[in-house]
Amino acid sequence: MDTRVTDQAQTVQDQSFAPGLHLLVDFWECRGLRDAEGIERVLREAAAVCGATVLSVMLHNFGEGGGITGVALLAESHISIHTWPETGYAALDIFMCGRCDPRAALPVLEAWFSPDSMSVTEHQRG
Amino acid sequence: MDTRVTDQAQTVQDQSFAPGLHLLVDFWECRGLRDAEGIERVLREAAAVCGATVLSVMLHNFGEGGGITGVALLAESHISIHTWPETGYAALDIFMCGRCDPRAALPVLEAWFSPDSMSVTEHQRG
Repeated sequence: MDTRVTDQAQTVQDQSFAPGLHLLVDFWECRGLRDAEGIERVLREAAAVCGATVLSVMLHNFGEGGGITGVALLAESHISIHTWPETGYAALDIFMCGRCDPRAALPVLEAWFSPDSMSVTEHQRG
Repeated sequence: MDTRVTDQAQTVQDQSFAPGLHLLVDFWECRGLRDAEGIERVLREAAAVCGATVLSVMLHNFGEGGGITGVALLAESHISIHTWPETGYAALDIFMCGRCDPRAALPVLEAWFSPDSMSVTEHQRG
């Protein structure tokens, strides 16, 4: 599997103030992209493994042939997902502040979506 | 106002497949960071100006002294916001696929939050 991880840190105005790390995650050739129940489960599991608190999960199913779009809103920020089953592609982003490390969510998401290739970029927010 | 816009395009597996543009937006020294009603209004206005369809808006108010965290879920992806009123900082991201240009949302958001400085980075998804 081709995995690219790059660090594109933003300019930070005050080095002592760092709300969190934001990952942009692209999965190609993956499975489960129409399975709303499975996606809700894996979003909750991904948050839990990071030690994050889920405030709510909101998913929209575009129906027959369409994808899923949704967000797990966290006390520590969010995980979003948008899927394109017709091309096997999913775009996720994982933003967590505080002591949570969003990178801990990646193995959980990879295990569920089983992508042939993926890209992860890291962005320091704040 | 200091505005930095950079283009950090991701590697795209298939040039003909480009789900959308994702902006990471940082606002410093801004206003309205505890105003949940105002934030919901400006998220809906930002989506509308891009021609995007709001599926739902989910906001969580951390209460006395705390910030707001929330997401506008769109048929075209999402706009998220997380605010830290104690430092005047807000982290937003705007992801839109299809014919919507998320950059059109920036003037609406800037007008509401009135940041002293901001950073915008652009990320092609897909």
